[in-house]
Amino acid sequence: MRTLGAVELEDVARGAAVLGTGGGGDPYLGTLAALRSLDQYGPPRVIEVAELDDDAMVALPFLVGSPVPFIEKFPLGQELIDAFHALDRFLDRKLTAVMAAEIGGANSVVPLIVGSRLGIPIVDADCMGRAYPEVQLVTLTLHGISATPFAMADEHGNQLVFETIDNFWAERLARAAVMEFGAIATGMAYPINGKQVKQAAIHGSLSYAQRIGKGLREAAATKHDPIAAVVEETAGFVLFRGKIVDVQRRTQHGWALGEARLAGVDGDLGASLTVRFQNENLVAIRDGQVIATVPDLIAIIDADSGHAITTERLRYGHRAVVLGIPCPPAWRTPAGIDLGGPRHFGYDIDYLPVETLVKTLTGAGAPIR
Amino acid sequence: MRTLGAVELEDVARGAAVLGTGGGGDPYLGTLAALRSLDQYGPPRVIEVAELDDDAMVALPFLVGSPVPFIEKFPLGQELIDAFHALDRFLDRKLTAVMAAEIGGANSVVPLIVGSRLGIPIVDADCMGRAYPEVQLVTLTLHGISATPFAMADEHGNQLVFETIDNFWAERLARAAVMEFGAIATGMAYPINGKQVKQAAIHGSLSYAQRIGKGLREAAATKHDPIAAVVEETAGFVLFRGKIVDVQRRTQHGWALGEARLAGVDGDLGASLTVRFQNENLVAIRDGQVIATVPDLIAIIDADSGHAITTERLRYGHRAVVLGIPCPPAWRTPAGIDLGGPRHFGYDIDYLPVETLVKTLTGAGAPIR
Repeated sequence: MRTLGAVELEDVARGAAVLGTGGGGDPYLGTLAALRSLDQYGPPRVIEVAELDDDAMVALPFLVGSPVPFIEKFPLGQELIDAFHALDRFLDRKLTAVMAAEIGGANSVVPLIVGSRLGIPIVDADCMGRAYPEVQLVTLTLHGISATPFAMADEHGNQLVFETIDNFWAERLARAAVMEFGAIATGMAYPINGKQVKQAAIHGSLSYAQRIGKGLREAAATKHDPIAAVVEETAGFVLFRGKIVDVQRRTQHGWALGEARLAGVDGDLGASLTVRFQNENLVAIRDGQVIATVPDLIAIIDADSGHAITTERLRYGHRAVVLGIPCPPAWRTPAGIDLGGPRHFGYDIDYLPVETLVKTLTGAGAPIR
Repeated sequence: MRTLGAVELEDVARGAAVLGTGGGGDPYLGTLAALRSLDQYGPPRVIEVAELDDDAMVALPFLVGSPVPFIEKFPLGQELIDAFHALDRFLDRKLTAVMAAEIGGANSVVPLIVGSRLGIPIVDADCMGRAYPEVQLVTLTLHGISATPFAMADEHGNQLVFETIDNFWAERLARAAVMEFGAIATGMAYPINGKQVKQAAIHGSLSYAQRIGKGLREAAATKHDPIAAVVEETAGFVLFRGKIVDVQRRTQHGWALGEARLAGVDGDLGASLTVRFQNENLVAIRDGQVIATVPDLIAIIDADSGHAITTERLRYGHRAVVLGIPCPPAWRTPAGIDLGGPRHFGYDIDYLPVETLVKTLTGAGAPIR
């Protein structure tokens, strides 16, 4: 067990923004809300998966919807606690801990807020090892674990709980409700016991994000290359360096959908790159060839600061580096690719690991630098 | 307390089809489902409002959605019981009786099915005295009673329960969910105690529907005018006699929306009549003048049998009589007109009672016969 102070909390958020692959909600706003909780309720307590009792009851708190209205509505107070109690009331056994659904953007710090406010521990794990835009896209689904009972709440005080026959139905109902709630709301779902966390979650995710964020912070303090710090920590690849020249984005079905096009500034890495997204970056196409796809992580990073740029913040003229980061092994199984791979999002592409694509397209076996 | 046999049950459904003003779901399908329950589980027990204990717990079971897919999906089995248990589980006190939300179409017999299957009494009352297409449009809303906790279920086994800050939010969430459920689902809502039933419900509705249905049955058996039987029982008015010459209907937002146009066959009653509907008939316009609007009841009746024609069954060539029936007094208060009057449905018309409109437009003080 350890507690997180303000510096550690900001490290987590900074690192999780990279792992969010463009989604998960604005990490700056998430951090502000988490720091406020820390001030008011004390530092969040983080426990390792190994410290969790097998019969502990854990649930995943998160924001559901589009990151675009999140900028305006900023729902990180009572709505989170309302969703927690709505689920807790529905369960036969009381919730004893929370855990991140996704280690991306604001959703990586949402469990820290809930843990701090309610005085319960946060498990150092998540269920994606990245961010994903649909509620069934978690490793728990691969283990046949139900998303429901699934609770939601909005900033007005409306609440709902549903139980569905599968996790795709949970996504459908959550999406329908969140559109009524103004395209952003809080969720509390996937109640599981400690044993299931040990079997089905991705362990150490909070620490992983924290290390990435710490690397970025130290690079800034010592004037070192922040991109190199991320690449080193994640075993990632620089896919492209350039300037954002075009962004198309719309809010539809409770998602931010669209694409960004970048023009290259580094001849060795190609002339143009297109990144398509549904809250999260899904596919990167360099000079007409796919260079990375889900489930691998595609992160658009500010070239100077090394901070991740979320899809709703993409703007013309931004100088950026695009990274490809290998996803956790669970997503590279046939079931994982089937659930969260390119075909799920409508791309008729066979998944190939980013390290394979990088090697094939450049002829080099080593990370492109 | 009395029990309903097959004949009485069919009388209720036949009468409720008239009071459904075009909505409430196909009464024939509702009757089939109710007769099946009666066969399998025994006759439903009906109690008068006066027999209800003040601390009894009553809830309203109903179909929510568009009557059009109801014809295909016919969700009147386990989904109703699932919705009941989903609500019951959520409440601190157990449900002891059910009551009709609306005394219209299939929704008038839905409580009979639940009561029969679960062996609990059905209260002889409803909350509209007609049918209406939105969940907040009940007399309970006029008394400040919350629609929630509100449970829903579908035929797959999906369930949800929500709590909202007002009954308009309940309608929004129910509509969003029912669209995911294929535009028709079961609901169980407005949990209230016996005292609230006594104060806020419309008493004797089941008996009222049964009397109308009995009148129609006896008219058919004795070759008497079935329309006259309905007019007599309801103190209603014949607004028009004609043939359906045009029907526009679409399923949108989980409703059947559209209008029917009739050409007259009775010179005294005008040449044309248009009825606009949102599941239920909302406004009747005769030769360019409004002759009846919500909250009064507008029923399109088969000219030969006297059976009501629901909006989803309106067809070119049907010979029909259009009746205007005064609504219960609760809907004629300023609050009632504000909640369920023409302006709620987008018609910029002052509500005038059907008896006033009939008198004004014909110059006669007596019902048109």
